Amino acid sequence: MEKIVSLCKRRGFVFPSSEIYGGFSSTYDYGPYGVELKNNIKKSWWKFFVEDRDDVVGLDGAILMHPKTWEASGHLADFNDVLVDCRKCRARFRADHLIAESLNLDAEGKTKEEMTKIIKEKKIKCPICGQSDFTEARKFNNMFKTFAGVTEDKESIVYLRPETAQAIFLNYKNILDSTRVKIPFGIAQIGKAFRNEITPGNFIFRTREFEQMEIEYFISPKADWKKIFKNWAESTQEWLGAILNNTNKISLYEHSKEKLSHYSKKTVDIEYDFPFGKKELYGLAYRTDYDLSQHQKFSGADLAYRDSLTGEKYLPHVIEPSFGLDRALLAVLSDAYNEEKVPVPSAAEGGDEVRVVMKFKAELAPIKAAVFPLLKNRPELVKKAKEIYNALKLKFMCEFDDNGNIGKRYRRQDEIGTPFCITIDFDSLKNEDATVRDRDTMKQERVSIKKLEEYLKNKLS
Amino acid sequence: MEKIVSLCKRRGFVFPSSEIYGGFSSTYDYGPYGVELKNNIKKSWWKFFVEDRDDVVGLDGAILMHPKTWEASGHLADFNDVLVDCRKCRARFRADHLIAESLNLDAEGKTKEEMTKIIKEKKIKCPICGQSDFTEARKFNNMFKTFAGVTEDKESIVYLRPETAQAIFLNYKNILDSTRVKIPFGIAQIGKAFRNEITPGNFIFRTREFEQMEIEYFISPKADWKKIFKNWAESTQEWLGAILNNTNKISLYEHSKEKLSHYSKKTVDIEYDFPFGKKELYGLAYRTDYDLSQHQKFSGADLAYRDSLTGEKYLPHVIEPSFGLDRALLAVLSDAYNEEKVPVPSAAEGGDEVRVVMKFKAELAPIKAAVFPLLKNRPELVKKAKEIYNALKLKFMCEFDDNGNIGKRYRRQDEIGTPFCITIDFDSLKNEDATVRDRDTMKQERVSIKKLEEYLKNKLS
Repeated sequence: MEKIVSLCKRRGFVFPSSEIYGGFSSTYDYGPYGVELKNNIKKSWWKFFVEDRDDVVGLDGAILMHPKTWEASGHLADFNDVLVDCRKCRARFRADHLIAESLNLDAEGKTKEEMTKIIKEKKIKCPICGQSDFTEARKFNNMFKTFAGVTEDKESIVYLRPETAQAIFLNYKNILDSTRVKIPFGIAQIGKAFRNEITPGNFIFRTREFEQMEIEYFISPKADWKKIFKNWAESTQEWLGAILNNTNKISLYEHSKEKLSHYSKKTVDIEYDFPFGKKELYGLAYRTDYDLSQHQKFSGADLAYRDSLTGEKYLPHVIEPSFGLDRALLAVLSDAYNEEKVPVPSAAEGGDEVRVVMKFKAELAPIKAAVFPLLKNRPELVKKAKEIYNALKLKFMCEFDDNGNIGKRYRRQDEIGTPFCITIDFDSLKNEDATVRDRDTMKQERVSIKKLEEYLKNKLS
Repeated sequence: MEKIVSLCKRRGFVFPSSEIYGGFSSTYDYGPYGVELKNNIKKSWWKFFVEDRDDVVGLDGAILMHPKTWEASGHLADFNDVLVDCRKCRARFRADHLIAESLNLDAEGKTKEEMTKIIKEKKIKCPICGQSDFTEARKFNNMFKTFAGVTEDKESIVYLRPETAQAIFLNYKNILDSTRVKIPFGIAQIGKAFRNEITPGNFIFRTREFEQMEIEYFISPKADWKKIFKNWAESTQEWLGAILNNTNKISLYEHSKEKLSHYSKKTVDIEYDFPFGKKELYGLAYRTDYDLSQHQKFSGADLAYRDSLTGEKYLPHVIEPSFGLDRALLAVLSDAYNEEKVPVPSAAEGGDEVRVVMKFKAELAPIKAAVFPLLKNRPELVKKAKEIYNALKLKFMCEFDDNGNIGKRYRRQDEIGTPFCITIDFDSLKNEDATVRDRDTMKQERVSIKKLEEYLKNKLS
């Protein structure tokens, strides 16, 4: 994991946010290659789940929503961490984490009273100072709050949305009225969400600010939800197959009846075997009509769907595939990271070295091709290489590099996962061709300069 | 303007946010066509300013940043509206707006003491209740604040970023160290920003939550900044030419010396003639080395650039083109909106009618082609049309529609700006061709089904 974090910083994928001010609260900024990778994952997801399907449309809702939304959704009452403080050293812990780590006991779903009791009776010790003197467990709501308008009173409290899903439920009726969708159909959204996590961590896996890619798929209450659930489980895994090389690191974890949210009839976590262990990559849940019925109740709006063929009126049920974009990106990074023993490129030196290579799927690679003049100080090579670069970059994301020897330039492109490197040498000037080197096989072939665009197009698609 | 707002809601471009709860504080959600239009504008901008250029790289920074950022940038001290309250009716106003509307006097840049004096001396009346009894003017900081962590004390205050630019300055050094950029170069970013505006308005023109597309272009202090400024003025206008039909609605407004921010040597607003008047579409500013020098001072980090050829060390100056994405989208909507008197499509009825057509540039149109079976109740037509739709939608954003008569379907596609409608009729089954209707000319031609993909590809590029 440290190797990935270090490569991310060194090679411009992910920087700790506000680093010159000592960093800020486990948030991260995506650098030049990170933003391209992230955008490519978004594009791939949107194409797969919106553009290529005929039953899903998109949405982009605001982060600031009417506060009633969170009353209706249950987040105001239930979106809590349970915390305790050590009375001796003032350290603060999530009570369930403290219990899990001290007693190897799963406390998820227990009330704060139950957790207080366990901590007291089992004389759990503070991991920091070793004393057993904790405050009573208390709830802490995980939504960030702010104030809209001039006054900071109760009436002007607004929350940063803790999930994108609710914007979909609030707009479901508007979308029914303004488009041609008919049940079953889905609404997809990519956007930021915020959770005031007490224990963020594992790099970009759990952060206070993150991006979600969510779909709410609306079905008839009479539909065979188990079959539709299964279809979604399959198509979401199909998409993972399109962005990852090794799908054997994916596994399913079904929530037991006791651990299900009260509104869910079935929830499956799709886990990925990250360097720090198996963790949730995305979730798939059958949420029944819980959300729409809550919003109908709290808003007074009629959210029923009317079937134009049968005349039937009903409140749709939903199946929700919910992806974390930053997690997907971390899975892609972990999946692509490879260390390989290879011969030192310069023959004179001989021997082996370790190359780090990010084997991104071509669709996701931030840079598709790099163009090099063999030598920096030969204007005729630089000129030719620039010409080729200038033509190719209008078609593919390209990079020009004339810095250091070719071997070093290859290694740099390997580390940012560029599928092809194109080198212009003296033969290129005579024969109008170039050396194209493949990232994964490291094999080189001569390709006519005229045919480079077509060559890349075929190889990259 | 009302026509555009109404079309936006009726046709799924833009919905008032949280509408079922009575709306929320002039925020908006982008519906199925709005999100495609917005994404297409983003893609166009990113391709033009990042992908196609060899001197600009991307970034995607977090919204929550270290609070010191806003001390250094000056936002904590200076990012204020000056407000007054009417003592009689409790209405609240921006003092500069009150003065501008009552006296037709530009109060921008005046201190709160000066404005208090003007309001008192000129006996300005409250526009609501007509009385002349205002509180003293006071400053109100426009940043949304929230708290990270459990306690709501001064130490845990965080602000939602009021502009994306500062994330660029904070990462400038990381980008220098991890990529191949050399001065002059730019860093581009698209992302949300938040301002607790007292008087948001004009639909999506001024909202509390909005999206920016900003570039900071780093240059040597010795560079000919006037020339570089001019180049940016030209290339940003070139991009506008790529997304708008009528560039004659664009004009330049140069800030006078007195109205310039203290750190800026030159600022030009590029204005667009919106239905509600000429307003800023984007800004172009020469910010000198103000931001980097402030962050250097507040962070203690060395932000100097070292020229690898000359060995010179200096703090770069910056030129900043700063676009509002929602404003660009509103300009695109205003530009595309057309009402035309056309013959009623069904010949039997005769006469004229007004069609509303959104003449989006093909690159921006949310849906590129719609596929219709002539009749809904003829399975052979529906089957053929579905086949064509299923093949085309993997290449272009497409829509299938079998609802109502063809004339109505054309009108609906006109209103969402779809460049081409493809109709499958009985001849299609015999001749393997289809009618393709052009949105703008309304001319129809028969195109071989085999060649539809190529036809659209040529027409849309």
